[in-house]
Amino acid sequence: MAYELYYWPGIQGRGEFVRLALEEAGADYVDVARVANGEFALATLLENGDFARPPFAPPFLKDRDLIIGQTAAILLYLGDRHDLAPKDAPGRLWVHQIQLTIADLIGEAHDTHHPLGADLYYREQMPEALRRAATFRKERIPKYLGWFERILIRNREGAGYLVGDGISYADLSLFQAVEGLAYAFPKGAETALADAPHVAALRRSIAQRPRIRAYLESDRRIQFNEQDIFRRYPELDRD
Amino acid sequence: MAYELYYWPGIQGRGEFVRLALEEAGADYVDVARVANGEFALATLLENGDFARPPFAPPFLKDRDLIIGQTAAILLYLGDRHDLAPKDAPGRLWVHQIQLTIADLIGEAHDTHHPLGADLYYREQMPEALRRAATFRKERIPKYLGWFERILIRNREGAGYLVGDGISYADLSLFQAVEGLAYAFPKGAETALADAPHVAALRRSIAQRPRIRAYLESDRRIQFNEQDIFRRYPELDRD
Repeated sequence: MAYELYYWPGIQGRGEFVRLALEEAGADYVDVARVANGEFALATLLENGDFARPPFAPPFLKDRDLIIGQTAAILLYLGDRHDLAPKDAPGRLWVHQIQLTIADLIGEAHDTHHPLGADLYYREQMPEALRRAATFRKERIPKYLGWFERILIRNREGAGYLVGDGISYADLSLFQAVEGLAYAFPKGAETALADAPHVAALRRSIAQRPRIRAYLESDRRIQFNEQDIFRRYPELDRD
Repeated sequence: MAYELYYWPGIQGRGEFVRLALEEAGADYVDVARVANGEFALATLLENGDFARPPFAPPFLKDRDLIIGQTAAILLYLGDRHDLAPKDAPGRLWVHQIQLTIADLIGEAHDTHHPLGADLYYREQMPEALRRAATFRKERIPKYLGWFERILIRNREGAGYLVGDGISYADLSLFQAVEGLAYAFPKGAETALADAPHVAALRRSIAQRPRIRAYLESDRRIQFNEQDIFRRYPELDRD
């Protein structure tokens, strides 16, 4: 039976980390909100679902009777089932730790255009966004990418992977995070990636994996846009 | 051999979720940064640690050769080892999902006093903080507590626990989150807790567990303060 992914239909958002794992795994899944009446199904399930274990927010994944919310928890589940995480307990935990740090980066990326909160439009918080984005570009992106770079360099087991000698969901998520940064902050990301060549190489190699490449070229891949976490507002990428 | 917890010494912060799990487990641990030269040890390990798997930021836990960063990952580890999570895979994942949602709540609580970012003082971002805190009190606290309330009501296996018929690290973390909300927003939290009686009852019962009670009364428990995630700024609790 196919997985059902529930996430907002018009954006990559946090759902994209789940999509990439499902695509790399070659798993059968339905992106529920993108099919007919799917957004209604999502809202209904979220608001009226009488589950003992209700999800708090999208994305959530349904696997028969099991419903799992929270991106990192979904990936923990899929990692075990589709060989996208090491089998040994320390390696499995280390992949998860990296994923949670990527989640922190994603949260900070979102806050660059919405520092005052999601209940105001971007244009209502532009001065604050300009300030926040400058700090993010100059300090935070290099700090995060520097950490991923160190991890890649120090992984003696497998060149080109964050953990062990094979792909994990953290590799896919780092690819997505870097793609997002490069979309939102073309100049800022280019500068930071010049100092993180292993991260840049991972980004290229993930994009060339057969299933990921096919996915990126398909219409299942939603394009980056300005309703999403990563938004290209040129003024936020200027000094 | 005792666990070593690495976290900033003057605040509860995210380290407190780990401390509560260690205390409830009766585990032997050293709160490294709070002993002589401990803060130096923390900084040294973070900046110069030549580990294959370096933590990104505190808190992190050292168990012999294993270093684990990210609060939720640390709790995933401790939950298994100290019977603070169900043994079955769905239950274990559900506790983790709740923990990640508590982490989101904590992040939002922090942003009420620092909406523009951690690189400015609170007094430099008061107007923005007032706005953000109002939304947090009126919309976000009730939404989160409403979700926890539903979970507690729907848990048929054990009255008074979020998951199954025994305590989990998510119960301890929810206790801490509610304590923090009640400290920072006495009026806002009281209003929200009136609509979430099961959450209020869980808070009371956790505080009365023998080990937690002993901990809260000891000098190991750092008091809430205005350098921490939860800050009592009365103006943020007023309409």
